[in-house]
Amino acid sequence: MGSNDRALLLANLRRGALEYCVLAYLRNGPSYGLDIARGLGAGAVLIESEGTLYPLLSRLRKGGLVTTELREASGGAARRYYDLTDLGRSQLETFTDTWQEFTSSVNSILMGEPL
Amino acid sequence: MGSNDRALLLANLRRGALEYCVLAYLRNGPSYGLDIARGLGAGAVLIESEGTLYPLLSRLRKGGLVTTELREASGGAARRYYDLTDLGRSQLETFTDTWQEFTSSVNSILMGEPL
Repeated sequence: MGSNDRALLLANLRRGALEYCVLAYLRNGPSYGLDIARGLGAGAVLIESEGTLYPLLSRLRKGGLVTTELREASGGAARRYYDLTDLGRSQLETFTDTWQEFTSSVNSILMGEPL
Repeated sequence: MGSNDRALLLANLRRGALEYCVLAYLRNGPSYGLDIARGLGAGAVLIESEGTLYPLLSRLRKGGLVTTELREASGGAARRYYDLTDLGRSQLETFTDTWQEFTSSVNSILMGEPL
C-alpha cells in the first residue's frame, strides 16, 4: 500500500465532507480563498491546494450556501470574500448531525463492536 | 432540510467508507450477504438494504480483497460466503489509519478548532 492508495482514500472521503468543512470555517466570518485553504490546512488531509477549493466554492455559491463579495485589499487589489448564508448554516447543522451518526457507526464497525 | 437531504449526505459519506466497513465485519470470519447486511445495521446509516451490498461485494471480489465460496446451508440450499484476503486485511489497515486522520481533521473544523 503506497501513498497513492492513501490519496485515493482521502479523495473519496473528502467528497462527502469537504464542502461542509468550508461552511464550518466560514462561521468565523467572511473569508477569501487563500485564507480558507490555510484554515483547512492546505496540503494535509482535507485539501491538497488552494486551487482545488474554487470549484467547490463555486458550487456552494450556486447552491445559495454562501454569498460572495469583492473587497479591496491592501494596495488596491480586490479579493473575493465568501460569506455563509442562513441556508448554509442550516445545512451545516444537518451535516454535523449526520456526520456524527455516520462516523460513530463506522468507528464501531472498525473497532469490531456490534452496532 | 428534510429526510432527502440526510439520505443524500449519507450516500456521499458511504462512498468513501462502506466497503471498508464490510471488510472490517469480515474480520469475524467468513459471512454471507444477509448476515453482513444485518451486522452493518441494514436500514440504518451504513446500508439501506441487503440488495445494495451485492455490487459492493462484487467489487471487493474483483479487487482481490475478498474471496467467495458456496457452502451448503440447512435444507440443502447453497449460500455464498465472503472471506477476507491478506490484501483486504492490509487495505483495511491503511483505510483505518487514513479514516482516523481524516475524521479527526473534520471534527476539529466542525468544532471550530484550528487544525
